[in-house]
Amino acid sequence: MYRYLKRLLIGQPLKTAEESGQSLTKFKALALLSSDALSSVAYGTEQITTALFILSAAATWYALPAAGIVLLLLFAITMSYRQIINAYPSGGGAYVVATKNWGTSAGLVAGGSLLVDYMLTVAVSVTSGTEAITSAIPSLQAHSVLISVVIVLFIMTLNLRGMRESASFLTVPVYFFVIMIVSMVALGLFNIATGKIQYSAAAHIGDAVPGMSLLLFLKAFSAGSSSLTGVEAISNAVPNFKEPKKRNAANTLAIMSLILAVFFSGITFLSYYLGVLPDPKQTVLSQIAGAVFGHGIFYYLLQLSTAMILAVAANTGFSAFPILAYNLAKDKFMPHMFMDKGDRLGYSNGIIALAIGAIVLIFIFNGQTNLLIPLYAVGVFVPFTLSQSGMLIHWKRHKCKHWILNSCFNLLGAVISFALVVFLFWLHFDNVWPYLIIMPVLLFGFYKVHSHYITVAAQLRLSEEQQLHDYSGSTVIVLVSSVTHVTTGAINYARSISDNVIAMHVSFDTNPKKEHETAQEFKMAFPDVRFVDLHSSYRSVVPPVLRFCDVIAKDAKQRNYSLTVLVPQFVPKKPWQNILHNQTSLRLRSALGAHENIIVSTYSYHLKK
Amino acid sequence: MYRYLKRLLIGQPLKTAEESGQSLTKFKALALLSSDALSSVAYGTEQITTALFILSAAATWYALPAAGIVLLLLFAITMSYRQIINAYPSGGGAYVVATKNWGTSAGLVAGGSLLVDYMLTVAVSVTSGTEAITSAIPSLQAHSVLISVVIVLFIMTLNLRGMRESASFLTVPVYFFVIMIVSMVALGLFNIATGKIQYSAAAHIGDAVPGMSLLLFLKAFSAGSSSLTGVEAISNAVPNFKEPKKRNAANTLAIMSLILAVFFSGITFLSYYLGVLPDPKQTVLSQIAGAVFGHGIFYYLLQLSTAMILAVAANTGFSAFPILAYNLAKDKFMPHMFMDKGDRLGYSNGIIALAIGAIVLIFIFNGQTNLLIPLYAVGVFVPFTLSQSGMLIHWKRHKCKHWILNSCFNLLGAVISFALVVFLFWLHFDNVWPYLIIMPVLLFGFYKVHSHYITVAAQLRLSEEQQLHDYSGSTVIVLVSSVTHVTTGAINYARSISDNVIAMHVSFDTNPKKEHETAQEFKMAFPDVRFVDLHSSYRSVVPPVLRFCDVIAKDAKQRNYSLTVLVPQFVPKKPWQNILHNQTSLRLRSALGAHENIIVSTYSYHLKK
Repeated sequence: MYRYLKRLLIGQPLKTAEESGQSLTKFKALALLSSDALSSVAYGTEQITTALFILSAAATWYALPAAGIVLLLLFAITMSYRQIINAYPSGGGAYVVATKNWGTSAGLVAGGSLLVDYMLTVAVSVTSGTEAITSAIPSLQAHSVLISVVIVLFIMTLNLRGMRESASFLTVPVYFFVIMIVSMVALGLFNIATGKIQYSAAAHIGDAVPGMSLLLFLKAFSAGSSSLTGVEAISNAVPNFKEPKKRNAANTLAIMSLILAVFFSGITFLSYYLGVLPDPKQTVLSQIAGAVFGHGIFYYLLQLSTAMILAVAANTGFSAFPILAYNLAKDKFMPHMFMDKGDRLGYSNGIIALAIGAIVLIFIFNGQTNLLIPLYAVGVFVPFTLSQSGMLIHWKRHKCKHWILNSCFNLLGAVISFALVVFLFWLHFDNVWPYLIIMPVLLFGFYKVHSHYITVAAQLRLSEEQQLHDYSGSTVIVLVSSVTHVTTGAINYARSISDNVIAMHVSFDTNPKKEHETAQEFKMAFPDVRFVDLHSSYRSVVPPVLRFCDVIAKDAKQRNYSLTVLVPQFVPKKPWQNILHNQTSLRLRSALGAHENIIVSTYSYHLKK
Repeated sequence: MYRYLKRLLIGQPLKTAEESGQSLTKFKALALLSSDALSSVAYGTEQITTALFILSAAATWYALPAAGIVLLLLFAITMSYRQIINAYPSGGGAYVVATKNWGTSAGLVAGGSLLVDYMLTVAVSVTSGTEAITSAIPSLQAHSVLISVVIVLFIMTLNLRGMRESASFLTVPVYFFVIMIVSMVALGLFNIATGKIQYSAAAHIGDAVPGMSLLLFLKAFSAGSSSLTGVEAISNAVPNFKEPKKRNAANTLAIMSLILAVFFSGITFLSYYLGVLPDPKQTVLSQIAGAVFGHGIFYYLLQLSTAMILAVAANTGFSAFPILAYNLAKDKFMPHMFMDKGDRLGYSNGIIALAIGAIVLIFIFNGQTNLLIPLYAVGVFVPFTLSQSGMLIHWKRHKCKHWILNSCFNLLGAVISFALVVFLFWLHFDNVWPYLIIMPVLLFGFYKVHSHYITVAAQLRLSEEQQLHDYSGSTVIVLVSSVTHVTTGAINYARSISDNVIAMHVSFDTNPKKEHETAQEFKMAFPDVRFVDLHSSYRSVVPPVLRFCDVIAKDAKQRNYSLTVLVPQFVPKKPWQNILHNQTSLRLRSALGAHENIIVSTYSYHLKK
């Protein structure tokens, strides 16, 4: 039943050799890896105007220069990441670049930031997608957390099925969104050119705004930088591209950045020209769409495509997180289980961990996205800064063709990214402070895991002069609760591996008569097996068993015998029936497993009915 | 660390013989078992007037006759349960009485109803207690679900510590509430007698009310019957009383019913005399307290005591549920684990199951109590009907002194309870329908568990002619992933229990060079052990291991050998480190456990650092 369900949801297992077949064409990769960046236009412009609108409606014209700087930053980051793709084609992005050039600690800061950030990507995208749905169908509003969780689980299932199939499925909403936004911007500009849309800006460019300060401008600009989240996803996923991997990835990144730039500047310009002001009940994008399309079918299609691409954006996290976790695990900073490839060649544990993390974030913040955006931006720009400054070191070391020109791009990117991190901590500290708690905890965890793996490997390594040990014999303790077919089978087996079998029974105060009967029955059935009856004044079986086993273990050691404790259990016909049995045997096995020189063995009796 | 925490929260383990010391005096039992019934006055009168107020304010005088019938029902139920205590002193209440007299199915309906009902008791009491807190401190309103969950977990912990300590702790709020309500009713009546409080009823007794119908009256009366929830708790807990158990329990029940009757009639009378009308922002009880005490310190003390007794009322469920679950488990209708007494002599699994059930209910209904009350009432009156009609059969069978008089009390109780069930289904179907889904599911589960235990017992029973089987020898398969100290230890142990040791390794496509090295290393270290290298085209270790073990199992069977599969693992120094290792060995053990004729054994290598 479980297996059937797993196959139905996840599909047939794939051979390791089938791996290259899972690689992505540019067309599919654009859909799979760009949705996070492109969907940012749904809130990027709004973040800038909201920050300015706190002063006055007149201040909103400053959105245009702020957007200009964001575009400049987008250009610098794109150029920088193209170079990273060429220099480090094995994926890993900021983590690899920072580690290679700055050293391990910087790499771990970058990696840790990104891990948290991918969880935020999923949480933010899914909850704002849900908000788009519940705005359309207000009766669902009460269930918004549930809807978000279901969407996360749905995307997780798609990813467990393997990346290629996810991509085929997910191209539709991304290209749908691209068509809708292109239509909206084109129609808007056409209407402006033909005079159908009147100029109605809230304030003209260059108007003096009383109370306007550089601080407020920086606050608005840094809030708008959330439009750039997700740009790094492609550089982390280079190994998933079709050959030639490097060129395909670099070109896909360029195409994505171009689309993003067009969208962002188009929306910001329309927002200025139409005099759109932030409104808690309606997004800026929705107001622009209403003004351009009117409130007909095209308006609703645009709203639908926005909701859909936000859901798909969550998928970016699912593409990037498992690969980053794999890289961290390979370097022994995260548990090895993140290196296991599942039946469908996805890193199943990473996918599941990401889904759990995102669901926890959704629960903690009760589905409210706006408070998370500054934290999300910090998580992005810290690794941006580290990777781009790391590239400066890279160029200085390698000095290939054009290295000075390349360095200039990276320097520009590094400076703007670093400035953004400073602005975010300075001007949005209210929302950003959790980063200062999460990061040290993560770093501590990385180092703790690392030192553990190193210590273990040293302990396990065979020394040259290691020798085999020859035991003189073996002792087996069989646990007996009552005398049944299970007991018979266990005793039979025990005698096949040992000449020294001891049956052990724990008796309680509650029913002395029954206890006496058990002892009699056993002696009747197995007259030549030693039977030990332990008396417990408490109800717990575990402590007396442990005490007795320790005594026998000492004795066995003196005689140079090995010691096995055989715990009988029965395996019911149907898995659900396990809940009705074996609780005690489970507890005993986990307690005995902690004792040295005792080998714990399980005799399973299979029920036929 | 875990053990230390457990001791701190739950206390030192108690011996089985210390059990009788845990018994309850009448004074403590009254606090522990009556809070549910007494706290019902916080909403009982309100339920009646709310139902009448839907018609008009004038209709509210009908609350007085409705309350009269509720009091009559209280008297009948009390008399009936006194007889049940005497007839069935071993506890179990409605479940035992219905089973003994009506048969198993009726008993299970009663038992199942009560199980769900105790969860509702906890959920309803805790959430309405939380509402009392959040009414006082409105800033906590956003966290009401969290507060409720914390209260449930707190009460759960008290119960895991053992019943006596809980009782000492819980007497305070119950007697505090009793004093506050007695003061309020007494002062109210005194003020009426001295003329300080003016007669200001919304409608005079006997006034004609346009639109009043018998249906509405029955709806109001059946809603008011929620005041009687919790009366049965004492009859289920007779074994917990001090000797003479029967007399102490019966007298405690009488005292409790008397207090409840005084409270309920006092509050209903004051509500009528003062002309209190239902108000969604303020409870009826709060309005009466305001009118009698004024809005000073005594008003707030009464509100506090109401919140506290509602929290304590949840404890009734924690006293009754585990005992009922124990009785059902003893009769093989629920998993045996509900029979395990924990370290502190409480039925820990029942306590934990109840807490989980209540928390789930709190989450599902988002902390809203009023919708749950009719369902709660059905869950109470179905077992009331079954147990009281069952007592009629009991008297007819036993015909002891006064049996005809006794039968009359039970007949009255049975008829009113049955009528209430009919009214609740008829007039409150909107809120009661889940009962028709939950009950069949529970009954199905009970029978399923029962038939499983019966089948298993039959399969395990030793037949007379059972014989011991003598194996000719034993084969051991040792799983090897790489050659380390763990491998050496496992091979050494395997050779102590067998002459036929096979080492098995699974190799993957990913790193052929390393795989070859492992094989070479093994052959160097253990030249006389057979080494089998299995090649896997997938990443999963499990399927090739299972296939190979099945082949060897067939071979062993032919040679009359037993077969052991030894899975090596290492035990890290600290428990958290387990997450970093052994995932594969866990998966292998659970997969192998499902195969017959294979004994799964675990070799544990203990890491020193």
